[in-house]
Amino acid sequence: MKKIYNPEIKEWGELLKRPTQTIADIEDTVLQIFDEVKAEGDEVINAYTQKFDKVAIQNILVTPAEVEEAKMLIDEELKTAILLAKSNIEAFHNAQRTERVAVDTTDGVSCWQEKRAIQKVGLYIPGGTAPLFSTILMLAVPANLAGCKEIVLCSPPNAEGKIHPAILFTADLCGVTTICKAGGIQAVAGMTFGTRSIPKVYKIFGPGNQFVTVAKQLATKFGVAIDMPAGPSELLVVADDSANPAFVASDLLSQAEHGKDSQVILVSTSKSMIELVEKEVAGQLEKLPRKEIATAAIENSKLIYVENDQIALDLINEYGPEHFIVCVANEDFYVDQIVNAGSVFIGNYTPESAGDYASGTNHTLPTNGYAKQYSGVNLDSFMKSMTFQKISKQGIKNIGNAIELMAEAEGLQAHKNAVTLRLQSLSEN
Amino acid sequence: MKKIYNPEIKEWGELLKRPTQTIADIEDTVLQIFDEVKAEGDEVINAYTQKFDKVAIQNILVTPAEVEEAKMLIDEELKTAILLAKSNIEAFHNAQRTERVAVDTTDGVSCWQEKRAIQKVGLYIPGGTAPLFSTILMLAVPANLAGCKEIVLCSPPNAEGKIHPAILFTADLCGVTTICKAGGIQAVAGMTFGTRSIPKVYKIFGPGNQFVTVAKQLATKFGVAIDMPAGPSELLVVADDSANPAFVASDLLSQAEHGKDSQVILVSTSKSMIELVEKEVAGQLEKLPRKEIATAAIENSKLIYVENDQIALDLINEYGPEHFIVCVANEDFYVDQIVNAGSVFIGNYTPESAGDYASGTNHTLPTNGYAKQYSGVNLDSFMKSMTFQKISKQGIKNIGNAIELMAEAEGLQAHKNAVTLRLQSLSEN
Repeated sequence: MKKIYNPEIKEWGELLKRPTQTIADIEDTVLQIFDEVKAEGDEVINAYTQKFDKVAIQNILVTPAEVEEAKMLIDEELKTAILLAKSNIEAFHNAQRTERVAVDTTDGVSCWQEKRAIQKVGLYIPGGTAPLFSTILMLAVPANLAGCKEIVLCSPPNAEGKIHPAILFTADLCGVTTICKAGGIQAVAGMTFGTRSIPKVYKIFGPGNQFVTVAKQLATKFGVAIDMPAGPSELLVVADDSANPAFVASDLLSQAEHGKDSQVILVSTSKSMIELVEKEVAGQLEKLPRKEIATAAIENSKLIYVENDQIALDLINEYGPEHFIVCVANEDFYVDQIVNAGSVFIGNYTPESAGDYASGTNHTLPTNGYAKQYSGVNLDSFMKSMTFQKISKQGIKNIGNAIELMAEAEGLQAHKNAVTLRLQSLSEN
Repeated sequence: MKKIYNPEIKEWGELLKRPTQTIADIEDTVLQIFDEVKAEGDEVINAYTQKFDKVAIQNILVTPAEVEEAKMLIDEELKTAILLAKSNIEAFHNAQRTERVAVDTTDGVSCWQEKRAIQKVGLYIPGGTAPLFSTILMLAVPANLAGCKEIVLCSPPNAEGKIHPAILFTADLCGVTTICKAGGIQAVAGMTFGTRSIPKVYKIFGPGNQFVTVAKQLATKFGVAIDMPAGPSELLVVADDSANPAFVASDLLSQAEHGKDSQVILVSTSKSMIELVEKEVAGQLEKLPRKEIATAAIENSKLIYVENDQIALDLINEYGPEHFIVCVANEDFYVDQIVNAGSVFIGNYTPESAGDYASGTNHTLPTNGYAKQYSGVNLDSFMKSMTFQKISKQGIKNIGNAIELMAEAEGLQAHKNAVTLRLQSLSEN
């Protein structure tokens, strides 16, 4: 781990830089597969599944029998855990529901805002050895609460042509309407254009490797929205002497095991805490099954000492971490003033993995500094805010002249005319 | 105007197609200017201002003296109109403020969601003969209510090197913090990378020509967010015999005058209303100063007759209009069931231009079918939703085992370990 003491502000930019990814060379591949899927649909998707996932798929759609079979394979203890997580995620996301906002801005001018569900959404769930069923909870639960009519899930099949039972069980539990055996670029293309099997959707959510990430970005050129731009997962801990170094180390490692490009940073006003955490990380790292990945990430990680809380806060806001853990005596200082972070974990008994799985908050969060301008996934991610207005005869009399003057000043005579005709008809009566 | 009677569902896709734009050939120009602005800043921006706007700019930043001068030039009547509009926009957007959402999802597990302002935002305001000061109201008012710290405005200077006084007056009135004389691709690049004069921002809002639109799209590759993808303005009116054909025609024309590529559509269950509106459009069109533009747009517009309200509603939801005017006896049918529209205008005395200027709703709305998945600009567009959680010792005891089981099932041992260490420390005490 790199230790940095009292970095100057002008060095922050370089110090907090994320590893850059080059995506230009992937774009051509993505565009080609998009073109093919648009033209040929299911057939070309299955051809790419054969090529990339090394398995022949006859039927992209998962059958009810496959779902029933999967349910039998899930351990009862795990089922109970998933149900607890679902219940917490539901409670937290349901509380985010907003009422209709109605204002009579002027006498006779009624305006209101309502949120309505995005009718068709797509969820991408990566395959591989680790089945990310927790991400289904994080996406399908709020999609369902929002009232999305079609919830399509794509996940790559394994070598036996199956999707992991934990994914099928969770998808079924959370009201996914269509489960498709398709992954990678071809799955994103399928949800973008629609095929015989895969429904076209309006917005695509979910994590993925760099091919999926670039495919999602390019999907936006074809009229589809995405949850947010993606990047490697990251965690920043601020800790003083009140922190528990073993806990802090375990949190840093839990993020480091995600990938070699994961970012973990400790910021501290205590030099001794930095030493203690460093020692703990080295010890805990040895015992991890994903040690190789975590070691690579830890090598790039940083332990930053700063003189005081204000400097620490400024530096953290400049970085904008996806996950931000606050283990300090004066936690309110950070909690009240952090403006750029995806999700904030407070105190010694709030590990980041709680938010990943079961506390109720969403784990789909902005990385790569995007916490400066993007929200994590929440109930509103599955809805659109629409406005409505109804103006009475008196209402148009009250604001009509202002509209006429402004339209005239902007050189838009027909805009003015739409008001003038109405005002004239009222003065005639 | 094209009249279509009882189109079959399978024809809707073709019927409702927007004119396609080709942007590929603009992308190279945009990328080149981005590279240059990133490397050379103000100097290259001024060089492009000289090239495209035909004027030499010494100082990109508008001075307080220029703002004071502009204030003197605005007609008192127009000032009063702008103040009324501002007051209504403030009232409606302020009402959209959401409280902190807090839930104890499990005993000892406190989760909450709070919205915090995007610290730095940029507003692009087109120049030209029609100064779009109304767009400043629509963007700067909610930015200010949200609490954005820096509100940067870029607008191209006119031939005298000045920005229209109505723009300066409104920007000053609405709390814009920096006004820059720069337009087009180079202005978007300036806000994306930051220059000596133009502050770097996190999110860029506002309309523009196709160069600005492509520049905003490409800005998203460099870590900046944008309000929404843009397209030509559009309006769909549903009208039955209770509508006033002159009013409907004036609304169609108010949208048609925006640009030759504007889209206006009338859907009706009344053949006679279609005839009456067509006649009114022809008559009103003659008198418009922007007749040439409106005529071109009207030529591409459609009058669609359908058998009943249900078909009309389905067709409208399939189209997803930016502006949707409802002039029918049974208006609740449409108001309750429209799911894809940017903003809805109800009744004979609610012209679309009311929402453009002064009723209080926002006029920055999703076009091009993006109403299916995007919100119009609202207070939340200037904020991010962040989540927080604090778990007590009892809390982690309550959900810790579920986290361990789920992390284990996903093969993420370090995630599990972060919980196990804490549970162990508690059982030891």
